[in-house]
Amino acid sequence: MTAGGRRLAGVGVGRGAVVGPVALVRAPAEVPDDAPAVRDGAPAAADDVEQVVVDAFAAVAADLRARADRASGPLAEVLGATVLIASDPSLLAGARAELGAGAPPVAAVRAAVGRFIDMFTSMGGLMAERVTDLVSVRDRVVARVAGAPLPGVPDLTVPSVVVARDLAPADTAALDLGKVLAIVTELGGPTGHTAIIAGQLGLPCLVQVAGATALEDGTSVVVDARAGELRVDPSDDDVAEVADRARREAAFADDTAPGATSDGHPVDLLANIGTAADAERAAAADDARTVAGSGLFRTEVLFLDATTAPSVAQQTREYTAALAAFGDRKVVVRTLDAGADKPLAFATLPDEENPALGVRGYRIDRVHPQLLADQLEALAAAAAATGTRPWVMAPMVATPAEARALATAARAAGLEQVGVMVEVPAAALRAREILAEVDFVSIGTNDLAQYTMATDRLRGELADLLDPWQPAVLDLVAATARAGTEAGKPVGVCGESAGDPVMALVLVGLGVTSLSMSLGSVPAVRFTLRRHTRSRCVEIAEAALAASSAVDARAAAVTLLDAEAAALLA
Amino acid sequence: MTAGGRRLAGVGVGRGAVVGPVALVRAPAEVPDDAPAVRDGAPAAADDVEQVVVDAFAAVAADLRARADRASGPLAEVLGATVLIASDPSLLAGARAELGAGAPPVAAVRAAVGRFIDMFTSMGGLMAERVTDLVSVRDRVVARVAGAPLPGVPDLTVPSVVVARDLAPADTAALDLGKVLAIVTELGGPTGHTAIIAGQLGLPCLVQVAGATALEDGTSVVVDARAGELRVDPSDDDVAEVADRARREAAFADDTAPGATSDGHPVDLLANIGTAADAERAAAADDARTVAGSGLFRTEVLFLDATTAPSVAQQTREYTAALAAFGDRKVVVRTLDAGADKPLAFATLPDEENPALGVRGYRIDRVHPQLLADQLEALAAAAAATGTRPWVMAPMVATPAEARALATAARAAGLEQVGVMVEVPAAALRAREILAEVDFVSIGTNDLAQYTMATDRLRGELADLLDPWQPAVLDLVAATARAGTEAGKPVGVCGESAGDPVMALVLVGLGVTSLSMSLGSVPAVRFTLRRHTRSRCVEIAEAALAASSAVDARAAAVTLLDAEAAALLA
Repeated sequence: MTAGGRRLAGVGVGRGAVVGPVALVRAPAEVPDDAPAVRDGAPAAADDVEQVVVDAFAAVAADLRARADRASGPLAEVLGATVLIASDPSLLAGARAELGAGAPPVAAVRAAVGRFIDMFTSMGGLMAERVTDLVSVRDRVVARVAGAPLPGVPDLTVPSVVVARDLAPADTAALDLGKVLAIVTELGGPTGHTAIIAGQLGLPCLVQVAGATALEDGTSVVVDARAGELRVDPSDDDVAEVADRARREAAFADDTAPGATSDGHPVDLLANIGTAADAERAAAADDARTVAGSGLFRTEVLFLDATTAPSVAQQTREYTAALAAFGDRKVVVRTLDAGADKPLAFATLPDEENPALGVRGYRIDRVHPQLLADQLEALAAAAAATGTRPWVMAPMVATPAEARALATAARAAGLEQVGVMVEVPAAALRAREILAEVDFVSIGTNDLAQYTMATDRLRGELADLLDPWQPAVLDLVAATARAGTEAGKPVGVCGESAGDPVMALVLVGLGVTSLSMSLGSVPAVRFTLRRHTRSRCVEIAEAALAASSAVDARAAAVTLLDAEAAALLA
Repeated sequence: MTAGGRRLAGVGVGRGAVVGPVALVRAPAEVPDDAPAVRDGAPAAADDVEQVVVDAFAAVAADLRARADRASGPLAEVLGATVLIASDPSLLAGARAELGAGAPPVAAVRAAVGRFIDMFTSMGGLMAERVTDLVSVRDRVVARVAGAPLPGVPDLTVPSVVVARDLAPADTAALDLGKVLAIVTELGGPTGHTAIIAGQLGLPCLVQVAGATALEDGTSVVVDARAGELRVDPSDDDVAEVADRARREAAFADDTAPGATSDGHPVDLLANIGTAADAERAAAADDARTVAGSGLFRTEVLFLDATTAPSVAQQTREYTAALAAFGDRKVVVRTLDAGADKPLAFATLPDEENPALGVRGYRIDRVHPQLLADQLEALAAAAAATGTRPWVMAPMVATPAEARALATAARAAGLEQVGVMVEVPAAALRAREILAEVDFVSIGTNDLAQYTMATDRLRGELADLLDPWQPAVLDLVAATARAGTEAGKPVGVCGESAGDPVMALVLVGLGVTSLSMSLGSVPAVRFTLRRHTRSRCVEIAEAALAASSAVDARAAAVTLLDAEAAALLA
C-alpha cells in the first residue's frame, strides 16, 4: 500500500467516485487601487483612461449578455439581472465622476460600484442577495480596466474536478460541462442548487468541504461522494479502488429486471424527468425496461423561460411528446411547482419574505386559477392524443380540502388517476383523510425534511438537521405509508431519498410502493433491493425509526445490510 | 331593533369589540405627470422648479429620519433604510437630468425613481421587498413637489378605528397609539406584524377585510374581533351589544382564583412578557395573583436596539428586575430568539433566502456560542441575586441532541429547570426523546403551525392554512402533551392559541399543564376553564382532533361548550 495524502471531509451528493486534477474557480485577482488602466497590454495614455473604463463596463455587460443568451431557465434570468447591473448608466456615471475628481481608474470603479453595494447592504437582509452580483460586476470591470485575469470559472482543457468556494448559477453556465468530472464546494448544502445540478448531470459532488479552495490548480484528487471525502494526492491504492468501484457498479447496471425484493415483493423503480428529452432518455433503454416509467415529471422545467403562461396548445405538445416516449408505462405528471426556489415569471408572487413558506405549488391556484385549469386540459388532451393514462398530482397540498378540490378539477378534466405530493408535514399527519380524496400520494422527501426540521434546503450551515435520515422525517414517511397500506392505495417517494440504496430499503420496509429517482441511481437501488427480503426491509426500517439521530438511524440500517450489499454501499 | 348596515368579513385577532369612527390611512394622492411644482401654495417660477424638487427630496429624507429617531428596534432599522433611499444622490441626480431634458417636475421624479424600481423589480423576487420603500419615497416626494397631501397615517383627533390596506412598520411608528381604538387591514395575516402589535397593545384587530379602505373617513363602525366582522353604520342594538359585552367581560375579570377546571384540575395561567416593565405590570395585581407567573419571558425584546451583544452585567440587571417582580412565582425565561422576523444586529445572519427556516433561535449557538453562554451566566447570577429559581428554555430546538446540549450547558451554569420550545414539527414528533433530556417543554403554537402547514406567518393570503385549529397542528400538540404525561413532566403552551378560551379547553383536554398568554386574555380563559370539567375538556379535544378542517375542528369544540360559556364566547 502506498501512502495517500490528506483527506478533507465534506457532505457527499450521490454515490460516485472519480479521480482527476483540480480546476479552481478563481477568486478575483488582487488589483491595487492605483493600478494603471491598461489598453492593448500597456498602460493607457492619460487622456485614454476614461475610455478604457467605459469600454470595460461595456465589455463586461456584453460578456454577461452572451452568457445569458446561451443559458436558459432561471440561470438566464439571474444572468439577465447581472447584465442590467453592468449596463446601468448610474454605475458608469459614478465612475466618470470619480475620475473627474482625480481618482485613479480602479479606485474610481470600486468607489462607484461600492456606493451601490453600501446602499444595498444597508437595506438589510434580503438585499445582500444582489450584492453578490454587484461584486461580481465590479471585479470583472476592475480586471478589464487593469488588464488582470478575469475572475470566474476556468477554461477546462482536460476533464477536471471543479473546486469553488461556492458555485453561482452564472459560474455553472460558463462551465464546459463535458469536461467536468465532479464538483466540490466549500459552501452550499446537499439539496442546494449546486447539488441538484450535479445530480441532474450525474456528477459526483461534495459540498461543505472546508479548505478545498486552498488546493493548487492541477492537484490530483479523489472525489468520493459516498464517503463524503476529498482525498488529496491519492495513493495508487486509492486510484485503484475508484476504478474497481466503477467496474462493480457497471456490472450491476446490466441488470434490468423489474424492481423487487429478494422474495419477489414488487417495487416500481421510476425516473424523475423534467422535459420530453429527459423522457426519451429515460425510456430509451426501452427493450431493457430500465425503469417502469416516471414517478415525477416536473412540468415547471418546461416553462422556466416563459414570461407569459404557456398556451393549452403549447402544453399539449410538450406533454404529448413526454407521454409518447414512455408508451404504456406509468408517468406521474406533477402540476406546476412554481414559487420558492423555482420562480416562474408568470406565476410567482414577487415579495415573499420566506418564499419556501409562501404561495408556491398548488397554492398558486388561489391567485392564478387559470394555470391549473389549462394544465389539466392540456394533459387530458395529451392523454387522448397518445392513448395513454397519465397520473397527475399537485405539489404543496396541505389539507384534505385542497386534495378534494384538486381531485374534483382533475377528474372533471377527464384525468383518472389523481394524487398529491406529501411534502407539507400536515399532509403526512393527515394522510388518511387525504387518501380518502385521491388515488395515490407521492412523498417529496426534500421538502418534507425542510419543513419537518424547519431548515432551509438552500442553506449549508444546517445540513445536519436537514438529513433525510432524521428520525422525525422517517416518522412522517411511516405515517404516510401506513395510511396508504390501510387505504390500499399507492404511496411513492420521489425525493432524493429514493435514490439512496440504503434509504430505499427503509422506505420499502415502511410500506412505500414505488421509488422515483434520477436515472443514474436506479441500478444501485435495484441491486440493493434484490439482496434483501421484504421482512428484512421492515426490520431495517424499524431499526432506523428506533434511533434518535440521523447518524444513528443510518448506522442502524447499515448494520442490517446483506454482506455483499454492505461491501458495495457502506 | 334598528336595522344595522353592511358587514365586512375578516380574520379577527383577539376577542374584543369596539365602536368608533374610521380613520383611513391615505393612499397617495392622484397627481398628474404634468402637475406644476408648488412653492408656498402657488405654482413655482420656472427657474425655481429644480430647487423645489431638491427641497422635496431633502424634506422627505428629513421627515423619515425624524421618524426613525423616534422609533426603536427593527422599526428604526426599516425606517433607516428608507432614509438612505430618500437621500441617495443617484435619485436626485436622475431627477435633475430628467428636468434638464425638459420633463415636468412630477414626471422627472417618477422617471428617476422608476428606473430604480424597474432595476430592483427585474432583479427578481427578493428585491421587490425594497420596491415598497422606493414607491413610498417616490409618492412622498411627488406629493411634496406638487403640494398634494402626504400619503400615510392620519393625525388622529378623536379615538378612532385605523383602517389601512396594510400597515407598514413606518405607518405604525407614526400613529398616536393613545387614540387608536382598533386596527383593520385589507391584507396581513392573523399572526403577522400588525396582529402582533395589536395584540401587545390589547387592541381589537381585523385583518383580511376586503373592501375596508373603500369606507369614508369618519364612518361609524363596530370592529368585532371575536366574530371576525366589521359592521358599518352599526344599529343602536349593535352598539348596545358592544357595551354589554364590555360589561360582562369586565365582570369576570374580577375573578382571580388560580386556574383550574370546574372539578379542580389545576392549570397554571401565566403571562407572556418581554421586559422588566411587562413583568411588573403582570405581577402588579400581586395580592390578587391574577397570573401564576410568566410562561414566556422573551429576552430578545430587551436587546432589539443593541448593535453589539449585551454584556453579562447588563443582562444580569435586566433579568434581576424581571425575576424580582414575580418574586416566588414561576418565570420561564426563553433564551434569545433572534433571526427570522426578529433580527438582532449582533446575532442575525444577513442573507437568508428563507429566514424562518434559517439560523434562528437556538441555532444561533452554532455561529455565536458566546451569546448563549453569557445569557445562561447572567440568568444564573440574576437567580442568585433574587433568590429565585427561574426556568430556562431555548427556542427552535429540533432534535434530542440539541436538547441534550442545551441542558448540559444550562445545568453547568447552575440553572435547575431546563426545557425547550416545541415549535419545529420534528421536536413534537420526537417529544418523548426530547423530554428524556430536559425537565419541561413549552409549545409555541404560532411557529409550530407555520412549519406544520408550511405557511408563512407574515403572509395573509394563506391565513386559512395557518389556523391553529388545523387538525394536523392539534395532532402535534397532542403528541407532545402525550409524551409529557408519560414522562410526568410539564407541557406548556405559550403561543397565541393559549389565549383563545375555546382552544384553551382543547389544550387542557390534550394534556397541556400550563397556558401562557397576553395578560389581557387571562380572565376569559380562567372563566371558561372554570365552567368545564377535565373530562369534558378531553371530549372537546377529541372532537376537534376528529375533524378534518380547522373550521370543523373549532365548530366541533364549540358545540360541546357549557351554555353560559358558549353565550359569551361563541
